[in-house]
Amino acid sequence: MPALRIIARDPATRARAGVLATAHGEVATPAFVPLATRGSIRTLTAPEVAALGYELVLGNTFHLFLAPGGELIESLGGLHRFMGWGGAIITDSGGFQVFSMGHGTVADEIKGRRGISGEGSILAIEEEGVRFRSYIDGSERYLSPETSMAVQAQLASDIVLAFDECTPFHVPREYTERSTERTHRWLARCMRWREEHARGSSLFYGIVQGGVYEDLRIASTEATCASGCDGIAIGGSLGQEKAQMHEVVDWSTRELERLAPERPRHLLGIGEIDDLIRGVELGIDSFDCAMPTRLGRHGTALVPDPANRWRLALDRPASRADKRPLIEGCPCPACAGGLSRAYFNHLVRSGEQTAGHLLTLHNLTFVATLMARLRAAIVDGTLASEAAAMRAGR
Amino acid sequence: MPALRIIARDPATRARAGVLATAHGEVATPAFVPLATRGSIRTLTAPEVAALGYELVLGNTFHLFLAPGGELIESLGGLHRFMGWGGAIITDSGGFQVFSMGHGTVADEIKGRRGISGEGSILAIEEEGVRFRSYIDGSERYLSPETSMAVQAQLASDIVLAFDECTPFHVPREYTERSTERTHRWLARCMRWREEHARGSSLFYGIVQGGVYEDLRIASTEATCASGCDGIAIGGSLGQEKAQMHEVVDWSTRELERLAPERPRHLLGIGEIDDLIRGVELGIDSFDCAMPTRLGRHGTALVPDPANRWRLALDRPASRADKRPLIEGCPCPACAGGLSRAYFNHLVRSGEQTAGHLLTLHNLTFVATLMARLRAAIVDGTLASEAAAMRAGR
Repeated sequence: MPALRIIARDPATRARAGVLATAHGEVATPAFVPLATRGSIRTLTAPEVAALGYELVLGNTFHLFLAPGGELIESLGGLHRFMGWGGAIITDSGGFQVFSMGHGTVADEIKGRRGISGEGSILAIEEEGVRFRSYIDGSERYLSPETSMAVQAQLASDIVLAFDECTPFHVPREYTERSTERTHRWLARCMRWREEHARGSSLFYGIVQGGVYEDLRIASTEATCASGCDGIAIGGSLGQEKAQMHEVVDWSTRELERLAPERPRHLLGIGEIDDLIRGVELGIDSFDCAMPTRLGRHGTALVPDPANRWRLALDRPASRADKRPLIEGCPCPACAGGLSRAYFNHLVRSGEQTAGHLLTLHNLTFVATLMARLRAAIVDGTLASEAAAMRAGR
Repeated sequence: MPALRIIARDPATRARAGVLATAHGEVATPAFVPLATRGSIRTLTAPEVAALGYELVLGNTFHLFLAPGGELIESLGGLHRFMGWGGAIITDSGGFQVFSMGHGTVADEIKGRRGISGEGSILAIEEEGVRFRSYIDGSERYLSPETSMAVQAQLASDIVLAFDECTPFHVPREYTERSTERTHRWLARCMRWREEHARGSSLFYGIVQGGVYEDLRIASTEATCASGCDGIAIGGSLGQEKAQMHEVVDWSTRELERLAPERPRHLLGIGEIDDLIRGVELGIDSFDCAMPTRLGRHGTALVPDPANRWRLALDRPASRADKRPLIEGCPCPACAGGLSRAYFNHLVRSGEQTAGHLLTLHNLTFVATLMARLRAAIVDGTLASEAAAMRAGR
């Protein structure tokens, strides 16, 4: 039985609505996936995230491998039990993080990562795997396709991602080509490890690489589909600008429509509001991104204001005496509780941690509502008008 | 009608259980009062605090006066509406904070305050009031009995505290004596302001000072009772050691039993677990303290372990692989949710903000449960055995 049951398709785009079956319940798609990088959705409890309607969160193999370690989490019953999350978990393979240390600031910039490049360092990238220094204690550590699979099995992830090399866009085409080919060899090793260790209940997604080169992206999409993986993730550098990123995704999903129309598709690390809308139109089923939770922790609310990239920075003077809620009619605890922008201005300027908690709840409510609207519009056949309304801030 | 309706008294001690009637509902006493210093219970939403059973929180006139200001909060409908709290609010007068700037580190140490002494500074303490520099922007500000009353009226506090001078214990007796007398003159000015401005629905508590001197404490208790205030708070330096602090409280409540047995009594800034138990025995009705919330934010859980001052520091190696919950059978979201000490060890060591949120919920659950047990024991006539059990960590 395929993992994804598609229940509706938009005739004008590649958008589809579906239900993704995992070992920890069903996930309505298209879905946004909040980050639980180190085993917690920052500032929130697991039941709070479930109450917002989320069915899938993303844990990070690289960070959890370094601390507290896969063995410890396995001995405590796996990541679900460790973090008290009853829903599904997808785990990043560690490839992105480990290569961020070597490739430097571009990927850092794109994903807003800080601290890894500076504190850890790559010691060697070889065909076998990658040796690097832990950013926690400076110890020498090693990740390979096999160790990544083993750690993700210890975590008992529901959706396992292949260990890949995440190539940035500022390297030469030759590097991207060689790197993408290695990613394909590593994909085969990941699948072999899984066959030998019979990790039957989890789904396995290969990762499409190929940089910003159409032919390499097409070749990578073909190679990934041919591997027989359960689902396809689109990763790597997706370009310097939004238009380029959308084009890179377009190349892959165009091929996927042809080669693997029923398999689930995840877009890695992308989640600005306009990117979510466009990504759904391009046929993506799930997205993960730090944006909503990170913005919340840093005093910014998501609001229907496309001109300001859907952002309201609450520390600005404009909010000082503003009696309005963040969004009129929003069901989140902050807005439904009658809290004003003025209150958030005060909390953010005073450094009160309750602001991060409430704004994280608000931002995840905003994104959950957006995804639910997109899904309903696909089912109802109204995606074009709904997407236009969203892009107009309605 | 008196504010406090006493429903049971312990025959062997001064402990009593009661119901305190405020403009925002009834408060079952003895009660612990969580801090909402700058208008939020840090890391928590107001409904979360209410769900733990709390009916009264403490806002801070000094901090809210400096930011965002009493006028702004009044224009937004008062502090309850500003922070989304439907229960009762008691507001500190600002006396403690303003004098902490002048008196230096002793009071800071006792209450664990940091940053005020260094960043703000007292410019002048005069009979009329106190001029000081704001720790926020360095501007010159002024607080007096009248301005404190006016700000607390703007906040629409349910329980207003008199503006007092909080004398530390390292000053000479002569200073303490003169300071206590000035506190009494300021008490009279506070009451006069309230009469002239007809703030009818709020309760007003005078503050007993007198340092560590029995005769001054007795005289201050008498003067405060004689003022006709609705309730009595015990403030100031309560001594260098626990035994001395308990003695200082003992002097006051002994006099209060004689002079004002029906009026509610609040003990300012005290709330270690053993102090709460002793304070209840000494006849205190309510307590405020930063301890449970601050410990939670800094990775320490309250547990029934008197030998370690009821503390479990979760960053220690002992918790690294500990599968047990913080407390077996605890109803808080962390323990009821099946989270292990090992998970908290990981979260605290990784600096994950969810730890502060969950540990604050746990610690406030612990203290709420303790206070409910003490209250039930007074009603049931079992306080002696219950207090003994608590002191033994049961």
